Amino acid sequence: MSRLLLPHHDGSDAYVSNPAPALGETVSVFVRVPAGSRVSRVHMRWVRDGEPVFTSAVVDRRDDGGEWWRAELEVRNPVTPYRFLLRTAGGAVRWLTGCGVTQHDVPDATDFRLVTYAPAPAWARDAVIYQIFPDRFASSGPKRTPDWAVACGWDEPVAAQPPLAATQVYGGDLDGIAGHLDHIADLGANTLYLTPFFPARSNHRYDSASFDTVDPLLGGDAALVRLAEAVHGRGMRLIGDLTTNHTGDAHRWFPDERDLYYFTPDGGYESWLGVPSLPKLNWGSHELRRRFARIAQHWLTQPYALDGWRVDVANMTGRRGAEDWSREAAVLLRRAVRQARPDALLIGEHAHDATGDLDRDGWQGTMNYAGFTRPVWSWLRAAVLPFDDFLGVPGEIPDRDAGALVATMSAFSAQMSWRSWTSSWQILSSHDTPRIRSVVGDADRHEVATGLLCTLPGTPMIFAGDELGLTGINGEHSRTPMPWHRPETWDRRTLGAYRELIALRRATPALRSGGLRWAHAAGDTLAFLRETADDAVLVVARRAAGEPLRLAGLPAGVDGTNLYGGADTLKVGTDGCIEINEDGPTFQVWSVRQNRKGA
Amino acid sequence: MSRLLLPHHDGSDAYVSNPAPALGETVSVFVRVPAGSRVSRVHMRWVRDGEPVFTSAVVDRRDDGGEWWRAELEVRNPVTPYRFLLRTAGGAVRWLTGCGVTQHDVPDATDFRLVTYAPAPAWARDAVIYQIFPDRFASSGPKRTPDWAVACGWDEPVAAQPPLAATQVYGGDLDGIAGHLDHIADLGANTLYLTPFFPARSNHRYDSASFDTVDPLLGGDAALVRLAEAVHGRGMRLIGDLTTNHTGDAHRWFPDERDLYYFTPDGGYESWLGVPSLPKLNWGSHELRRRFARIAQHWLTQPYALDGWRVDVANMTGRRGAEDWSREAAVLLRRAVRQARPDALLIGEHAHDATGDLDRDGWQGTMNYAGFTRPVWSWLRAAVLPFDDFLGVPGEIPDRDAGALVATMSAFSAQMSWRSWTSSWQILSSHDTPRIRSVVGDADRHEVATGLLCTLPGTPMIFAGDELGLTGINGEHSRTPMPWHRPETWDRRTLGAYRELIALRRATPALRSGGLRWAHAAGDTLAFLRETADDAVLVVARRAAGEPLRLAGLPAGVDGTNLYGGADTLKVGTDGCIEINEDGPTFQVWSVRQNRKGA
Repeated sequence: MSRLLLPHHDGSDAYVSNPAPALGETVSVFVRVPAGSRVSRVHMRWVRDGEPVFTSAVVDRRDDGGEWWRAELEVRNPVTPYRFLLRTAGGAVRWLTGCGVTQHDVPDATDFRLVTYAPAPAWARDAVIYQIFPDRFASSGPKRTPDWAVACGWDEPVAAQPPLAATQVYGGDLDGIAGHLDHIADLGANTLYLTPFFPARSNHRYDSASFDTVDPLLGGDAALVRLAEAVHGRGMRLIGDLTTNHTGDAHRWFPDERDLYYFTPDGGYESWLGVPSLPKLNWGSHELRRRFARIAQHWLTQPYALDGWRVDVANMTGRRGAEDWSREAAVLLRRAVRQARPDALLIGEHAHDATGDLDRDGWQGTMNYAGFTRPVWSWLRAAVLPFDDFLGVPGEIPDRDAGALVATMSAFSAQMSWRSWTSSWQILSSHDTPRIRSVVGDADRHEVATGLLCTLPGTPMIFAGDELGLTGINGEHSRTPMPWHRPETWDRRTLGAYRELIALRRATPALRSGGLRWAHAAGDTLAFLRETADDAVLVVARRAAGEPLRLAGLPAGVDGTNLYGGADTLKVGTDGCIEINEDGPTFQVWSVRQNRKGA
Repeated sequence: MSRLLLPHHDGSDAYVSNPAPALGETVSVFVRVPAGSRVSRVHMRWVRDGEPVFTSAVVDRRDDGGEWWRAELEVRNPVTPYRFLLRTAGGAVRWLTGCGVTQHDVPDATDFRLVTYAPAPAWARDAVIYQIFPDRFASSGPKRTPDWAVACGWDEPVAAQPPLAATQVYGGDLDGIAGHLDHIADLGANTLYLTPFFPARSNHRYDSASFDTVDPLLGGDAALVRLAEAVHGRGMRLIGDLTTNHTGDAHRWFPDERDLYYFTPDGGYESWLGVPSLPKLNWGSHELRRRFARIAQHWLTQPYALDGWRVDVANMTGRRGAEDWSREAAVLLRRAVRQARPDALLIGEHAHDATGDLDRDGWQGTMNYAGFTRPVWSWLRAAVLPFDDFLGVPGEIPDRDAGALVATMSAFSAQMSWRSWTSSWQILSSHDTPRIRSVVGDADRHEVATGLLCTLPGTPMIFAGDELGLTGINGEHSRTPMPWHRPETWDRRTLGAYRELIALRRATPALRSGGLRWAHAAGDTLAFLRETADDAVLVVARRAAGEPLRLAGLPAGVDGTNLYGGADTLKVGTDGCIEINEDGPTFQVWSVRQNRKGA
């Protein structure tokens, strides 16, 4: 059965009268019940002070897709979970939660939820993030080589393994970035995210020696001011990277300020995954908290005026043995950031499962490796891979079908609010992973991956160089210097696809803020709708050619206009069915505007 | 495919070298990999300070069921989540978590977990709870009628609706209970749980007027001493019921001690579900916390020496609007209880989903309506029901198959530790629900329900009178006076089944502390194994007659001995298959001891 024939709710504007309610407010929530689903009664269950309350839903309106049921919910708690109970004329009783329609009881973990904490800023909802690893993006000129570094020419190969992987210095700097904003703007990205710019003793700078100045190698504080002014002058945004779990052992706090770290009775100290150069910070220390609040605020204010922070290793920050200060750390940073800049963004890095740490008054989103990167990789992976690791999971990336992709995405998105999902960064690759091109193997599948990045819910993050088809077999190896001076090596087709797909996203409200209904997910084919109250977009992705597919449940009689990658029009039959042809790999986007006039 | 052919792990002793580890300890965890499942590689993933760590498992031993893989886990945090990664020779990659084997990625919520907080006391693991509503169990003689009460003769019908439902007083008391301990002992129950005995202005006493004395109507403090001595004299246990969310409006604290409640600016006050006679307690008050710690301890010490508390409305306790002191309340009570009696039990009532509140240093288990009562009811419900409510969910109990039963039980048990699951109370009915007999309609299905109560993981709780086949259409109506004087009305077959099944549980270690492997769950048939390292018991439950069923994956060549409800022996073929015949409703238990000698 087409998934479009199932009742649906999500946290997007068409289904929730106010996705950012205040405590005590009453919010209307809606369920779309397609014609033919035989639903005769709908209740909404919400949890009020820990106890479920059931409210009858009523039919609010009908349109050619079916009925819209409405129920009213009191936003009683900072996080108010809710779900729907559906009864059919035949006596079946089903739940509708964030993981869809189930025929048995399920715990609250996948309930929809309304959250009263301030949402991510409005600009972040429309952001397209461009991630830059400063040493490898662009250089404004020659500079001295630090004592720990191995100076490299821009064309020298990047090492995949230590120690060279951390010591190669290519000489990129902040003025270099400022000199290439045209490229980023032409791509369509509007937000720069820089990996750390603080002084350190490695090319990645996650071993900070200070949080008080910009590394002179990158041009120092003045260069950051110049870059911030150039970025903001174009109406773009700039996000920094704060390492809260550890510092470098060359940090000016270490080892003298003992209360800020964890020293052990044997004279040793706790460090990140046992790496001695990365001593772990002690968030039980109120002095540490005070300092980090000040640091977070300092760089958000003039003349730097960063627009937010990505917080490194947020998943470990504050956690050690019997201690768990992770929530305190997140809440403190959020409060500090809000005081400095009410419209700043705070994203916590979490590589495996952030769901337990979101929807609090802390991180506004995560780097969604678990709910986006892994399912996309395992659907689009190349037949033969040049590496043997699945983002830290031992062994090759598994080869999974589109059903598994949707199952994974749903499993993770169901355990966070719509807001946390859409504010999280969707990632095809980053400075910590192989390049998407090396994962998928060719430009065809790379285009499909880019299409999913630009059309699924969540904020696209592009690792600089992915748009040129660069390759890399692990995080270190992927930190490739941008080949500005070798334009003949750029994959122009891939660059064109990025530009076109990003532009499509930015021009199409349904792709930025619409709801998501999966239409079909099996084998080589994935199809879904992104919809606002006024707009509907059908996305069809195929990783390989296959049988033609008949898809039911679309708005009957609509002539779809092609927006990307297909023929000129798409004809929806009077029965609401379309035929998807056998092309593949393919990525297609269609406008299928629906008749919203109520009956 | 038989579920017995799937790899398996659970938190029972055969799979975990130490289920109650100290912080810092290393624990061996095992996966049973049946022959033929083609698993070629097993990793264990555990989360250490918020970051996943993978460890290679090794084959520890082989037996005729397949391979046992072993991995070592450092218990780094108070709750350490872990799961298994299974790779097959064919390249498939699967996760094994608390919800079984999945072919896509799943969040951490269903990870197995080791917990370092002190476990429930050893006696609780072998407890069979007998729940008594004191006004309705037995009377030691006539007594005065309070001003709020309507005195009733023992044979008068019980009202199902207010106001009479709360004001009928039949005159049961604590000495009456002490006079009928033979019945409870003969049944095989070993732990009495009394609903509140504090003074109040209702028959249920959840509207306490004091926590300092036993209601004189029940015999006062002296009667509790007599009952406790009689119970303990038989080696049995006695558990009280503490209302922490609210008091009655006649409580001596109310309304003068304003900081202990929530008064509103309009002169009103917060109350339980808006019922004015039940003002809600403010757990933000440190004075309230201090008092409850003292109250909890007072009754656990001599001469009462209660063995634990069931905490009423634990799900709402401390939760109100923006405030959430629920964890503080649970941790405080746990600490207080432990100080008074290290071997006391603390159970939190939670009617819909306790999983988020367990596995902390608070409640040691819950009343498992969500993960036991509802799935059993919806599998065994009668064709026609005398009521129209599903434990607070609007509408009739749905009619669901055995697959849905297992899906629901697994969904809830997967989100708590094995310890929290097995320490939770499994309930067929209680003073808050219709009687199981009214749910299932006849003695045949009642026997199947009782069988599941006594053979599935968790602590059986029997609501006094269920064993006699009493009926009731809602919580109030089910609070039937025990028909001691009308033995001709007792359902002797049902009583016999309770006695036999409880005795079987108490005599069979695998039924008390063994692991659980589902063997078959579809339509009218449910089959599962309970196993320790030395013992294996097969349970077959059918709600109706059906086709004969062939079940694969049992230890080959075993002659099963019947322990309950079937023919004399069960022959397991050399292929490990048995035939289950077409009888039904039926409940059968078989000993199928396995060959544990390693190859």
